[in-house]
Amino acid sequence: MQLNPHYAELNESYLFSTIAHKVADYQKAHPDADLIRLGIGDVTLPLARPVVDAMHKAVEEQGHKETFHGYIPSEQGYEFLREAIRKYYAQRGVTLDLSEIFISDGAKSDLGNLLDLFSADNTVLVPDPVYPVYVDDNVMAGRKVLYLAATAENNFLPMPDEAPAADIVYLCSPNNPTGAAYTVAQLQAWVDWAKAHDAILLYDAAYECFVTEPGLARSIYEVKGAEEVAVEVCSFSKIAGFTGTRCGYTIVPQAIVRGGQSLNKMWLRRQTTKFNGVAYIVQRGAEAVFTPEGMREIQANLDYYRKNAAVIAAALDEAGVWYCGGKNSPYIWLRCPGGMGSWEFFDWLLDTARIVGTPGEGFGPCGKGYFRLTAFGDAARTQQAAERLKAALATL
Amino acid sequence: MQLNPHYAELNESYLFSTIAHKVADYQKAHPDADLIRLGIGDVTLPLARPVVDAMHKAVEEQGHKETFHGYIPSEQGYEFLREAIRKYYAQRGVTLDLSEIFISDGAKSDLGNLLDLFSADNTVLVPDPVYPVYVDDNVMAGRKVLYLAATAENNFLPMPDEAPAADIVYLCSPNNPTGAAYTVAQLQAWVDWAKAHDAILLYDAAYECFVTEPGLARSIYEVKGAEEVAVEVCSFSKIAGFTGTRCGYTIVPQAIVRGGQSLNKMWLRRQTTKFNGVAYIVQRGAEAVFTPEGMREIQANLDYYRKNAAVIAAALDEAGVWYCGGKNSPYIWLRCPGGMGSWEFFDWLLDTARIVGTPGEGFGPCGKGYFRLTAFGDAARTQQAAERLKAALATL
Repeated sequence: MQLNPHYAELNESYLFSTIAHKVADYQKAHPDADLIRLGIGDVTLPLARPVVDAMHKAVEEQGHKETFHGYIPSEQGYEFLREAIRKYYAQRGVTLDLSEIFISDGAKSDLGNLLDLFSADNTVLVPDPVYPVYVDDNVMAGRKVLYLAATAENNFLPMPDEAPAADIVYLCSPNNPTGAAYTVAQLQAWVDWAKAHDAILLYDAAYECFVTEPGLARSIYEVKGAEEVAVEVCSFSKIAGFTGTRCGYTIVPQAIVRGGQSLNKMWLRRQTTKFNGVAYIVQRGAEAVFTPEGMREIQANLDYYRKNAAVIAAALDEAGVWYCGGKNSPYIWLRCPGGMGSWEFFDWLLDTARIVGTPGEGFGPCGKGYFRLTAFGDAARTQQAAERLKAALATL
Repeated sequence: MQLNPHYAELNESYLFSTIAHKVADYQKAHPDADLIRLGIGDVTLPLARPVVDAMHKAVEEQGHKETFHGYIPSEQGYEFLREAIRKYYAQRGVTLDLSEIFISDGAKSDLGNLLDLFSADNTVLVPDPVYPVYVDDNVMAGRKVLYLAATAENNFLPMPDEAPAADIVYLCSPNNPTGAAYTVAQLQAWVDWAKAHDAILLYDAAYECFVTEPGLARSIYEVKGAEEVAVEVCSFSKIAGFTGTRCGYTIVPQAIVRGGQSLNKMWLRRQTTKFNGVAYIVQRGAEAVFTPEGMREIQANLDYYRKNAAVIAAALDEAGVWYCGGKNSPYIWLRCPGGMGSWEFFDWLLDTARIVGTPGEGFGPCGKGYFRLTAFGDAARTQQAAERLKAALATL
């Protein structure tokens, strides 16, 4: 028996567990320190009441024989939820067929599992810095990974004219970790490049709900021809606080056909074989996100996070620290002041301001000297963090 | 870009969708026919009240900021649930460490995903007949699949003395589809064989809750040395009616180490990279399965299904039809009477008795001439099916 040899090629430690260990050590040494966590991208507001009510109703249905739901009729997801997503896309002019929408237990699962559909011989292009799982998913499968530098020079939005040849390209917009967001026009260049190079775009739209500025894309399917080359992965985690409730969706267009094989049919086969669908209760909760009452409460929550981002941004403005993001994204990506390295700034910020953030270097070499703060915290605590940040930066 | 070439090697249609089409056609032709479904292995009793109550409580927690749960602290699962499973195993003398228990969204997912840990060059041994996904999971990955005949001659419990060399062996006991269950002594032979051949056993224990006879194994870890060679996959689907609620667990022992690589650490890495854990609400529901009140209601439900099995078995006994299973399993595996083929019997049973079952042939070539009935139906309907079955068989 041979184990998968590629696991040995993975980097040993995972970014967030390294941070957790550092923070635990600091707390042990400073038991009275009042830390404010603006690190991991977890939400803090509860589920919207219409979502909670829908899940209560579904839980009760599961407790009675007459209304009990067993196996999910399709691993692809209940039609009621796929229909709600279809309408959500239709609102911004994107036409999807129900057969193109697959309900998942989250973006992270599908971003990994989608790779089952592609040969291990493909070359993968990943922006740097990037959400670490894109890389690990491919290292595990033995794929060659190339990097595309996202830097201040290209506004952290690398374009295909700088790209080497590759078969699979990851794009994440609004970006984790940089908060940078592509315009529809910029994505058109990526779609055209993918067509010219017979490449597939894996488009991570997990943060689309934060986009407010016109001209920026919320879905890659706002771009002409994208349905021939792009798979889009999205999640209820950020739009509706589902980080602990686990639901997302993936769009695999019918138009992606290569050598007579339909990617949509392959994914359906993958999911019916290796997945049993998302809990009925959770799908009912997700459906309620799209009701008028659900959307109203959710938009108020997003505004709450947007205000947090503005508060952090104002503190950085005042201190004269360069940053991007925070406007169409819950993430603020700042250049570490005083020429500090990103782990150096992590330690300094923890010690000086008792704020936990995320070193940019953890997302790739191009993140060196940068740092990520998130807007997902409590408003009062974020305000307090901004005050501390200003005070600390003033001492430099 | 190259697609995974192995998807083209999969058999086109999935057993249960073929059946669904046949039934739909029959219903169209006979709109007044009152069909009784003893086909797909879905449960019909609702979730136990303590499970429903626990989920209501968890849903409400998710609706308030003070009690909201975001990302699951470990993709491996909440400690409260892993601790409950640890105790469940301890009751039958199996000692597990919490680090060896991984909460999943169901057995089907993990049975597929576990293969990520093994080289594509391994040879896989699969019993025939078998749950179809074992084969498809491996065909998708390009692995060589060998079959081990389960026949009336070996009581549908193939032993390793008949086995060809293989790296990964699937065992399912009590078996789907045959209902046959291995004794601890028989599994000892498999564990010894695996050690001698440096093989890994993937043990599917999804139906362990139906075992009542002493001497039969409920976990492979009741066998001495199994922790060095066996991974066990289990589910709440059958014990607690979670087919639509999606929760299971997988045991990856710390003792499985090959070439310095720990399978447990590899699986942890796989799950932290490609999975985000099971919903807090669902894990709270699963925890309630193991409370005294939960167990009491669940055992009553299992007895209800056991009585259904006895009713079907009695009808077959009366008609002189050979079968196995039904005693430590929800499945009854019968030899098609009158020398009928299994699809032939499917059509005959549908037309003569308006009962939907599953042709044994759908589970592999050795299932030819056999047929599966399930005990998961409504009691009154199952009683009615038994009467129809007797009447129909009497006409042969």
